[in-house]
Amino acid sequence: MRAAIFRNGEIVVDRLPEPTPGPGQVLVRTLACGICGSDLHARKHAHRMVELTRHFPGRKPMDLARDVVFGHEFCCEVLDHGPATVRNLKPGTRVCSLPALLTLQGPVGIGYSNDNPGGYAERMLLSEALLLEVPNGLASEHAALTEPLAVGIHAVEKANIRGNEVPLVIGCGPVGLAVIAALKLKRLHPIVAADYSPARRALAVKLGADVVVDPATSGPYATWAEHAAMSDAEKAARPPLQAFLPALKPALIFECVGIPGLIQQVFEGAARDARIVVVGVCMETDRTEPMLGIMKELNVQYVLGYTPDEFARSLRLIADGEVDAAAMVTATVGIDGVAQAFTDLANPEAHTKIIVEPWR
Amino acid sequence: MRAAIFRNGEIVVDRLPEPTPGPGQVLVRTLACGICGSDLHARKHAHRMVELTRHFPGRKPMDLARDVVFGHEFCCEVLDHGPATVRNLKPGTRVCSLPALLTLQGPVGIGYSNDNPGGYAERMLLSEALLLEVPNGLASEHAALTEPLAVGIHAVEKANIRGNEVPLVIGCGPVGLAVIAALKLKRLHPIVAADYSPARRALAVKLGADVVVDPATSGPYATWAEHAAMSDAEKAARPPLQAFLPALKPALIFECVGIPGLIQQVFEGAARDARIVVVGVCMETDRTEPMLGIMKELNVQYVLGYTPDEFARSLRLIADGEVDAAAMVTATVGIDGVAQAFTDLANPEAHTKIIVEPWR
Repeated sequence: MRAAIFRNGEIVVDRLPEPTPGPGQVLVRTLACGICGSDLHARKHAHRMVELTRHFPGRKPMDLARDVVFGHEFCCEVLDHGPATVRNLKPGTRVCSLPALLTLQGPVGIGYSNDNPGGYAERMLLSEALLLEVPNGLASEHAALTEPLAVGIHAVEKANIRGNEVPLVIGCGPVGLAVIAALKLKRLHPIVAADYSPARRALAVKLGADVVVDPATSGPYATWAEHAAMSDAEKAARPPLQAFLPALKPALIFECVGIPGLIQQVFEGAARDARIVVVGVCMETDRTEPMLGIMKELNVQYVLGYTPDEFARSLRLIADGEVDAAAMVTATVGIDGVAQAFTDLANPEAHTKIIVEPWR
Repeated sequence: MRAAIFRNGEIVVDRLPEPTPGPGQVLVRTLACGICGSDLHARKHAHRMVELTRHFPGRKPMDLARDVVFGHEFCCEVLDHGPATVRNLKPGTRVCSLPALLTLQGPVGIGYSNDNPGGYAERMLLSEALLLEVPNGLASEHAALTEPLAVGIHAVEKANIRGNEVPLVIGCGPVGLAVIAALKLKRLHPIVAADYSPARRALAVKLGADVVVDPATSGPYATWAEHAAMSDAEKAARPPLQAFLPALKPALIFECVGIPGLIQQVFEGAARDARIVVVGVCMETDRTEPMLGIMKELNVQYVLGYTPDEFARSLRLIADGEVDAAAMVTATVGIDGVAQAFTDLANPEAHTKIIVEPWR
């Protein structure tokens, strides 16, 4: 089969052996697979990724001398069933799955692995037990957005929203947009969102942001504060010695950029007692001033991925039209277009989510 | 009056003008004042402290060209009342107060200020409204431990304990010991605590640690894991895909050291989903691998200080014998002994808490 392969630090097109489904597995045809920011990171920082995996004894790091096929945001069509399968989803059924294969030793990832090729290939193997049928005749390229939406749904769940927070989303790439969509579902308003790109800000509004900020012209934290003023009742309810502090509602900041220095920027801008959810995946060493965190009593919740329930819920939300995930898709490419798409995604004005259709 | 003064980066003894109580203020005689790790930090990193204060527009940074009198863990005797005071606490009454003066512009700190000398001086000014009478004939040098205990009480309150966590305290200096005492009050067992010093580990046991670890000979996180095994019922209650993860109770880690690199060590050692409370005050820039936090979905709660309620509760806990705070006191010195005490505190085997008695 043909695949866009990560080989020697580059994305190249080549042929790979046809996969054969093992026990409990299903052979599927990849219909659509989104390119994730983590894939761009992984191409650039693959050695760091391998190095960090060493902290997790259960995980098998990628061998960078061997081929890897990225792609973990996919929608597929069932082709064939391996042994020991229930076969309730017939060939031809369109399915999504979280990017993992169940093994007797536990789940292993699809996409950042030498053994389990991801969705930038014509065919892949999935675990039958994890398959979710695509409902409502939802288009495959939109079903493929289940995974990135689930990231936002999960981040907002981990934020333990109490209902009185004013959220600020830093960065309106696919992760930030998914967070905005998830916040809108929680009816937490106003949602303030910041991005340098006008196209991304427009998308943020489309997905639910009430206020968008261009950090080049106004401070996201100052804008946030304008929209976070306490009501008179909230002011009156404060303990005596707090009456001298700025009368702001609780800050809930989503860091959706994932580059070094960003968390320190949030530490500098955040209001006292802010809760920060780190959704952006920074693979490099970072520097912060812990004293800022200490003096403001900040809380930082790092998040990754989603639960199987959140993943399933995300697919339904898209299928039911509750989230306009389709707005994120800016292009579709075939296998031959993946390398160029990696380059194109560097320009936030031009692209947000590019979908790979390996059958093209 | 005589005072141990922070001047040109050193602690020197000199005379200062007698303070005169303003409206709402009380003139007190310092009976006992603990030397805090933050004072040692402040002597070494005063410029950093000033620099960081710039992030907080309301706070007035220290002018390091002028004198500063440290000391924010004090017990005093009322000498005289200023104008506009209620005078319900007569001269001779022994009192504690959180280290702040109330002003019309809000509370300002005592001890890291050119204007409000702390407890390393014979006399000081306090706000009448913040005074707490020392109960039960509690010794002044033990009443002075209210402030450091309150730091531990507050850290444990901010941890939002659910009851099923197994705590790990990293560092058994006064902050770590106060955290251990506060955890014991919450009946959260076993309390695992780590420190390189045998003397500090012995104190940790005295204050409530159930298991102590010498990181030179065994890993604190491995020891923690031995004591954090889930019960069979807890194992059975886990969602299906989590059954492959280590069967450990939730980790609650208190970082009570406050030097660069420590948070990264915690990131490396912490179990998945660990909650980390940063109580140690690190005044230098720190480096971490955010990916470790992300892959483990860690939560970091930075804390500082305490509420007025927590402070008052700490005084009562010591007075009622609920916390054996006295165990921390390893020496008392006069004003002339402060500089040497700063040096002596570098050796954890020799000292934990040194109390300054300026009247000596």
